[in-house]
Amino acid sequence: MTHQELFKNIKKKRSFLCVGLDTDVDKLPDGIDRSSKGVFEFNRQIIDATHEFCVAYKVNTAFYESMGSAGWEAMEHTVKYMQVVCPGVFTIADAKRGDIGNTSGMYASAFFEHLNFDSITIAPYMGEDSIAPFLKYTGKWVILLALTSNKGAEDFQLKELARSFKNEKVKLFQEVIRTAQNWGHLENMMFVVGATRPEMLAEVRAIAPDHFLLVPGVGVQGGSLQEVSRYGMNKTCGLLVNISRSILYAGKDSNFAQKAKEEAKKIQEEMEKIIAGSILFHS
Amino acid sequence: MTHQELFKNIKKKRSFLCVGLDTDVDKLPDGIDRSSKGVFEFNRQIIDATHEFCVAYKVNTAFYESMGSAGWEAMEHTVKYMQVVCPGVFTIADAKRGDIGNTSGMYASAFFEHLNFDSITIAPYMGEDSIAPFLKYTGKWVILLALTSNKGAEDFQLKELARSFKNEKVKLFQEVIRTAQNWGHLENMMFVVGATRPEMLAEVRAIAPDHFLLVPGVGVQGGSLQEVSRYGMNKTCGLLVNISRSILYAGKDSNFAQKAKEEAKKIQEEMEKIIAGSILFHS
Repeated sequence: MTHQELFKNIKKKRSFLCVGLDTDVDKLPDGIDRSSKGVFEFNRQIIDATHEFCVAYKVNTAFYESMGSAGWEAMEHTVKYMQVVCPGVFTIADAKRGDIGNTSGMYASAFFEHLNFDSITIAPYMGEDSIAPFLKYTGKWVILLALTSNKGAEDFQLKELARSFKNEKVKLFQEVIRTAQNWGHLENMMFVVGATRPEMLAEVRAIAPDHFLLVPGVGVQGGSLQEVSRYGMNKTCGLLVNISRSILYAGKDSNFAQKAKEEAKKIQEEMEKIIAGSILFHS
Repeated sequence: MTHQELFKNIKKKRSFLCVGLDTDVDKLPDGIDRSSKGVFEFNRQIIDATHEFCVAYKVNTAFYESMGSAGWEAMEHTVKYMQVVCPGVFTIADAKRGDIGNTSGMYASAFFEHLNFDSITIAPYMGEDSIAPFLKYTGKWVILLALTSNKGAEDFQLKELARSFKNEKVKLFQEVIRTAQNWGHLENMMFVVGATRPEMLAEVRAIAPDHFLLVPGVGVQGGSLQEVSRYGMNKTCGLLVNISRSILYAGKDSNFAQKAKEEAKKIQEEMEKIIAGSILFHS
């Protein structure tokens, strides 16, 4: 998918919502079998209920791997299902992979060929050759971790480096964003920036004004959609805001799909207002 | 497995070799089916041929995931097989995972419970809460990426931080090792340090004298076993040297297991000489 196609979908759906399929087999509602088959059945109903209101789905690989090969099978069925039911939707493997070149090539093959995801999240620690194999695929995206939504982001990502840039101190996450722009571009690279530090989005926009950002942390983790939009939106929207738990588990029983739909619709309506009020899109 | 049990195995086998099962379905020798079943059959024969000469096996998850759920099944069979055939061997999931707390908990469940690996490699970028869920398991190990063997290690790992420590400049990988010692200890944490920069092992030993290190990069990647041992060995050996391709693909046809055995034996004999010549073990 191209940058423009993604922007077009956002305008058409008046939404920049990404629904996170962090499907926990132990949290499946009554009436859904607590198995890998149940996980797919749950995802199927969530996708049917929400795809009208979102432009992307993010599949968190950890939740599937906790069930082993059967979980991987549920992931395979899930990504295939969304490609059939909502073929224009942007699909994200939230896998946080990254390894030496030949190994990253294997991960690229797993997620871009075998599973046919549009994108994958990557940890930057191992540098350029750990990312390059993913950037070889036209129309596919690397979503590089920059500033994550968790407390542990303080441990390394927010550390200041010895070198400065134009007399300003550079934090590790800023160095990651700056350096990675030499490897990828607006058509194959996004960055993860957590919603829990919305003011940092302004710092990110100073370095990467035009890139799409994947923003987790709105909802259960406490981030605010308004704040994220204020600091992070650009002229092609530039935001995919991920929400997982508050949509998936909006209902506790057989009403779960209906409740997920209502929650996704509510968020889409809030996003529609933000889009309508933004001068950026319409300038 | 405890630190002492691992050291005891090293002394008993006179080896600190870890065989890396980076099994590439496209490189399987003639006579082995090029499928996930073939991958397991290949691994089975490699394990039978080499377990006498090594103390650990490292399973590189990327190579299995490139075959999807069928590949995960081959990985499940492989780890079960080694636990039956050589129950004292140390098993490593080379998965380079790491995510926010609840997601890392799912990865811990996948690799420590479902697959029952002894250890997993983790990328440090997301900080403490991305690692903590793995450290809750007694007898299981986090192997944290510190200084990797690839060129991309220069991009961030070797960057100097603004803060210094005892008037010395601190590089990111040193900060990772220092900080992570507040989270784990000698019984649940190791570090990855690549063999391609053996002199850096001395810098690592200045910060982490007693930890085990997992050292990739000897063999095809160019690192030297002698150099690694000179700079990295400590009084409980403290090294697991991983070799993958030069063992797995020592033979090109039906002789592959015999050739792998010869190659593993040759490395073990070199290690035995290093151990015998080391004053550290015997002091």
